[in-house]
Amino acid sequence: MTIENALDLYTSVRERSVALCKPLQAEDYVVQPVVEVSPPKWHLGHTTWFFETFFLKPYKTGYKEFHPEYNFVFNSYYETVGARVLRTDRGNLSRPSVSDVYAYRAHVDEQMRAWICNGMESMDNNAMSELTSLLELGLNHEQQHQELLATDIKYIFGHNPLFPSYQTLIPALQGSTGSMGWIRVPENVYEVGYKGDGFCFDNELGVHKVYIHEFQIADRLVTNAEYLEFMRSGGYKDFRHWLGEGWQWVNDNTVQAPMYWYEIDGQWMNYSPDGLKPIALDEPVQHVSFYEADAYAAWIGARLATEFEWEVASNQLQQEPQHKFQYGELWEWTNSAYLPYPGFTKAAGAIGEYNGKFMVNQMVLRGGSVATPAGHARRTYRNFFHPPLRWQFMGIRLVKR
Amino acid sequence: MTIENALDLYTSVRERSVALCKPLQAEDYVVQPVVEVSPPKWHLGHTTWFFETFFLKPYKTGYKEFHPEYNFVFNSYYETVGARVLRTDRGNLSRPSVSDVYAYRAHVDEQMRAWICNGMESMDNNAMSELTSLLELGLNHEQQHQELLATDIKYIFGHNPLFPSYQTLIPALQGSTGSMGWIRVPENVYEVGYKGDGFCFDNELGVHKVYIHEFQIADRLVTNAEYLEFMRSGGYKDFRHWLGEGWQWVNDNTVQAPMYWYEIDGQWMNYSPDGLKPIALDEPVQHVSFYEADAYAAWIGARLATEFEWEVASNQLQQEPQHKFQYGELWEWTNSAYLPYPGFTKAAGAIGEYNGKFMVNQMVLRGGSVATPAGHARRTYRNFFHPPLRWQFMGIRLVKR
Amino acid sequence: MTIENALDLYTSVRERSVALCKPLQAEDYVVQPVVEVSPPKWHLGHTTWFFETFFLKPYKTGYKEFHPEYNFVFNSYYETVGARVLRTDRGNLSRPSVSDVYAYRAHVDEQMRAWICNGMESMDNNAMSELTSLLELGLNHEQQHQELLATDIKYIFGHNPLFPSYQTLIPALQGSTGSMGWIRVPENVYEVGYKGDGFCFDNELGVHKVYIHEFQIADRLVTNAEYLEFMRSGGYKDFRHWLGEGWQWVNDNTVQAPMYWYEIDGQWMNYSPDGLKPIALDEPVQHVSFYEADAYAAWIGARLATEFEWEVASNQLQQEPQHKFQYGELWEWTNSAYLPYPGFTKAAGAIGEYNGKFMVNQMVLRGGSVATPAGHARRTYRNFFHPPLRWQFMGIRLVKR
Amino acid sequence: MTIENALDLYTSVRERSVALCKPLQAEDYVVQPVVEVSPPKWHLGHTTWFFETFFLKPYKTGYKEFHPEYNFVFNSYYETVGARVLRTDRGNLSRPSVSDVYAYRAHVDEQMRAWICNGMESMDNNAMSELTSLLELGLNHEQQHQELLATDIKYIFGHNPLFPSYQTLIPALQGSTGSMGWIRVPENVYEVGYKGDGFCFDNELGVHKVYIHEFQIADRLVTNAEYLEFMRSGGYKDFRHWLGEGWQWVNDNTVQAPMYWYEIDGQWMNYSPDGLKPIALDEPVQHVSFYEADAYAAWIGARLATEFEWEVASNQLQQEPQHKFQYGELWEWTNSAYLPYPGFTKAAGAIGEYNGKFMVNQMVLRGGSVATPAGHARRTYRNFFHPPLRWQFMGIRLVKR
Repeated sequence: MTIENALDLYTSVRERSVALCKPLQAEDYVVQPVVEVSPPKWHLGHTTWFFETFFLKPYKTGYKEFHPEYNFVFNSYYETVGARVLRTDRGNLSRPSVSDVYAYRAHVDEQMRAWICNGMESMDNNAMSELTSLLELGLNHEQQHQELLATDIKYIFGHNPLFPSYQTLIPALQGSTGSMGWIRVPENVYEVGYKGDGFCFDNELGVHKVYIHEFQIADRLVTNAEYLEFMRSGGYKDFRHWLGEGWQWVNDNTVQAPMYWYEIDGQWMNYSPDGLKPIALDEPVQHVSFYEADAYAAWIGARLATEFEWEVASNQLQQEPQHKFQYGELWEWTNSAYLPYPGFTKAAGAIGEYNGKFMVNQMVLRGGSVATPAGHARRTYRNFFHPPLRWQFMGIRLVKR
Repeated sequence: MTIENALDLYTSVRERSVALCKPLQAEDYVVQPVVEVSPPKWHLGHTTWFFETFFLKPYKTGYKEFHPEYNFVFNSYYETVGARVLRTDRGNLSRPSVSDVYAYRAHVDEQMRAWICNGMESMDNNAMSELTSLLELGLNHEQQHQELLATDIKYIFGHNPLFPSYQTLIPALQGSTGSMGWIRVPENVYEVGYKGDGFCFDNELGVHKVYIHEFQIADRLVTNAEYLEFMRSGGYKDFRHWLGEGWQWVNDNTVQAPMYWYEIDGQWMNYSPDGLKPIALDEPVQHVSFYEADAYAAWIGARLATEFEWEVASNQLQQEPQHKFQYGELWEWTNSAYLPYPGFTKAAGAIGEYNGKFMVNQMVLRGGSVATPAGHARRTYRNFFHPPLRWQFMGIRLVKR
Repeated sequence: MTIENALDLYTSVRERSVALCKPLQAEDYVVQPVVEVSPPKWHLGHTTWFFETFFLKPYKTGYKEFHPEYNFVFNSYYETVGARVLRTDRGNLSRPSVSDVYAYRAHVDEQMRAWICNGMESMDNNAMSELTSLLELGLNHEQQHQELLATDIKYIFGHNPLFPSYQTLIPALQGSTGSMGWIRVPENVYEVGYKGDGFCFDNELGVHKVYIHEFQIADRLVTNAEYLEFMRSGGYKDFRHWLGEGWQWVNDNTVQAPMYWYEIDGQWMNYSPDGLKPIALDEPVQHVSFYEADAYAAWIGARLATEFEWEVASNQLQQEPQHKFQYGELWEWTNSAYLPYPGFTKAAGAIGEYNGKFMVNQMVLRGGSVATPAGHARRTYRNFFHPPLRWQFMGIRLVKR
Repeated sequence: MTIENALDLYTSVRERSVALCKPLQAEDYVVQPVVEVSPPKWHLGHTTWFFETFFLKPYKTGYKEFHPEYNFVFNSYYETVGARVLRTDRGNLSRPSVSDVYAYRAHVDEQMRAWICNGMESMDNNAMSELTSLLELGLNHEQQHQELLATDIKYIFGHNPLFPSYQTLIPALQGSTGSMGWIRVPENVYEVGYKGDGFCFDNELGVHKVYIHEFQIADRLVTNAEYLEFMRSGGYKDFRHWLGEGWQWVNDNTVQAPMYWYEIDGQWMNYSPDGLKPIALDEPVQHVSFYEADAYAAWIGARLATEFEWEVASNQLQQEPQHKFQYGELWEWTNSAYLPYPGFTKAAGAIGEYNGKFMVNQMVLRGGSVATPAGHARRTYRNFFHPPLRWQFMGIRLVKR
């Protein structure tokens, strides 16, 4: 991003968040059916709070905050920035209302646009470059919440007994009819981590070398048809395929299928924005937890990739037109824990809470999904979630020796 | 109620539920901040479901249910009538939307009115009388939910960090400036229970005799000023005043004051529909749990009335103009457990689940409150809640030997 | 109790506690499998602590406490007497060891006996009479723990996968072969509460009048054969028989039979000190919760007695030799909540915590059991437990109009 | 291990488990104060069950199991081998008694010794070699439980309000007076994993190459004095040093110091087998969680090693006498998640449940401790625990660039 295209980028990213919410009625903006799903109006307010807190308040002369309580309401997890609504309570707040939140957005957008046009120009180069980076972070932050908006809206509708259908910006998955192909990646020392000069998150920095042993990686994700075989062979009933904590999770929650699958009159149905539909057999299976991805791989005699195997393979296959290597429709669980790269250091202040403090007990996902905004992800991008979570657009890719 | 005034009563009761929701925006209808607070749209739907389920479906020829899933969504606790949304999940449902619920009300109201005008007239006397009774139950049921609507809306607003103010139908409490007077009730055998020929709930039936020993009852409720003395003398810090479970409750929840009290810059404030206001010292203290009512009484050297002492006193003082005996602004915790009267029997079918199955681990409250619809309560009326609950309009009356 | 027989009584009560533990190995004294079951060595220590704390420390000149930490370890719930081990942690303490506890008993017994013989004699009459009463309370307290020892030891053995058999002082239940008879009690004003001049607990005091309507009471308890009919007719599967909280309890705990019943190869077996044995059909059913007692009564079309109906009936039938009226083998759940009698006041100090602070959310049981020490219970005796508990020796007596 | 020294090894390992329990009284064998601490008699029984289940039952002709219920009682987590006592219930079982468990050990030991002497000799070489490996696994398994016995006994005594002192086989920690030195390890490709021909666990197998960037590693662990500085500078009060889940853990449990530290009259004391003693300032700090280790490193501006950095450094420094590199007194938390090595596969059957199923949400520890039996650990040895656990002998080593 440069100062020249900053205003356009700001405008287009901000508008997309609003567009994602088009199909919602006021009530749909409010609910938080499980702790990890935030109310859509909270996402809209929180992303706005980000710009107010990190740009307008510290840098815009004479800026007066929109509402004295909004810092409390819309702070997510930044301890640096003060007290906040408990995450579990977000769905208890009917106010600020949806129209209050849109007024907040309009106010902050107007101020931000004015400041980008006029305020930043008057800065020296150093300050401008630093703030441009921070602005880029703010927009990438908003894009991450756009993906969460898409998944949270799906959760809210897909767990409602009326199963409402709705228009969505998120493209449908493409089917895959061929058999699974395997691509060999040779043993070598490889470089991983982000080394371009565009934007990336701090957790991708620290380009470093890794030693990779030879492996073969599947050229496409596991399909619903393939996953159904696992189910039908009793995959959810046999502890031998599962990690200990995964087996506990299956039993505590009586899990029998991926999220959004419902067995109705003996047929497996799947909630999509069109409502309940029979399973599309050739689509990649989605909304599985790490435990399920790992158990499927164990059952079939394969395994999940490490995040570095995935990065090396996708880098290499990028340049080899003879290989199809489909990715980008679903985040792919890897068997790598989310940990810092060599030399990782947290930034000072609130921005330093962005990534580093989550580096324990989560697994890395790679590749992006249909819900990821265009241009947001990269091959070095490290997404991460706790092993039992599956409301994101997540799938399974296999690796073998 | 008679068949002649049934239509008028039906219309006015149904309209009052809607009127109570006037100050709400769509978002306010949706949330369930704690398990005992239901979303306002759920109350509106559930009371409608009651008429659809117990009148239109069984008795109206050719009636087609409004929506096949609404029985699942709006059933509260009637096991007889099938599966239902878990009580804890009511606040997770953004759909049916508020306008859907109002459409449901309009549809059922139209059908009910037609049926009251035409359908019931064609019945024989027995059937008509039975259905008139059932209709009266339905309207009293709706009035109970009107009281819950009032308390739940207060909870939703009074626990929102923005503390919105709103217009309400519920009248304000009147202050009490005089000192507490004591009225003596003589030892005797008395009759209790409902013996009029109007409507009452089944739990008031079974007129029976009770032996009451002499006691004195306060002529008004405990005020905020009096309760503040309890607080300032360390009432919440001294286990000796508390029941064992009450002391546990105080400590588990770090309770320090009645609900809606907030200490701000050293002053006690109180949430009311006008927003946060300083405590009105001469108002009766409200939103206290049974544990707090009992502890206050123990601290001051008095006790709570039994439900029969209360009923006997209020019956008698009704006829004695020389005594003021104020009641009806706040439900009064008694020290009687909610148990069946001699000869109590549950009705057959779903209606039998109305009262009887709650007769354990709850305490009786008597007297009615500002939120109780006019004409709904009686001196024999038995309200009941679990000891720790305090979001209702509840207060404290003392009794001594 | 008089000062003359105090020493004998003290000695015989204290010895019985030890005798009850004869069949135990050291390990059996330690465990606390559920929160309401205390380790036997804790009972032995706690009853000893009672005498050390309320007699030796305040009254015996020059008494030095046995161990500075034992007050912390063996205090049960007396907030007045300082901090204590959390009830849930009693089973985590391997020390003091069993032999330490017996040494503690020996030490305290020796000091108590010396003090009863010599110390009390030198007091004036008032002091002596007050202390004699307190001593009587201490011995009755120990007898209550003897009953708990019996039930807790049964729980420890009856929930061990090895189901050890053991010798016990507790007599077996007698079978009942006749059909259930019904005895009519006429409507009248009756007196209830303790009015003798022997020992009773403060919760029995306050003799007062109650108005009783005519009822019929069964002359014996419900048998295992009768209860099996309830089970076989689907009693645990039909919500209509159950209180709402009872139905929740059945489902949360998948309850299908009384405690200690195990279905093995299609036959119902029952744990007793002799090990697992087939159900004895003509014994009274025992180890049922209040919920089960209430559901059984509802299923058969009867109800439970109130505690006053029970007291009045047992008083009257005492004098009528033409009626058999069996009681005393099992505590009988009544449908009365545990609440204070008119005029009840808590004693000052720690002794005041004995009964009063439990008067909420518990139900009264009457009649005594095979585990109650001889001479301990009375017809006015009020036992009380929370509705779901059933590890005590508890049974069901029916009442009808 | 060879068939020649098998009997000696078997005997000495089995005897050491018993020797560790010398200071225990019968009661100490029984308790399970928290879920991760097993009763000592359970360890003694479980290690015996291992030999009975995996050797005597399948291989010894005519072997009759010692007791039909012991498989249920002493199975730990092997789903393959049937139902088992819930882990949380181990402390509820007073039977089998301590002497029963010792009888079980004596019986199995006698049978095992006979079988090692006679039974194995008659096998062909293949079978014998396979069983020798399995025997080696059984003895290493018992050694792991010896370490747990030591830590669990410390927990049982160190959380008892009497803080009993006891003799133990576990040597005391040595103080460290010098300043912390740093040793540089150069960037390179290194080999990791076990490649000797002795015993190792399956999780160490799969020798493979890793690319290590240059780093410096401390030559000794962090001391109590150094850790106290962290505490005194407010380390437990400042979220910036902590992982998000660590900060939650600190606040949920009000953690203020390592386990076994008690502040008494303003001085920090430490439970050891000698009872409560003032902190020894120059000893390495122990009984810290991963969260505490990570926070300390963040506070001082360093980090924890990865498990491969640790292995590479310890391998290299082994050969460099100019460097002191102390390890082996405390397990060292690494910043590596416990994950499979390339090519890791689970063995078939119950033995396959040994390690693989735990490979999620745990962190690797390296180096061994004073409680690790002599000869049990290796530089390639991978211990693993969940981040909040700290009852093991665990410490902190720093790494920096």
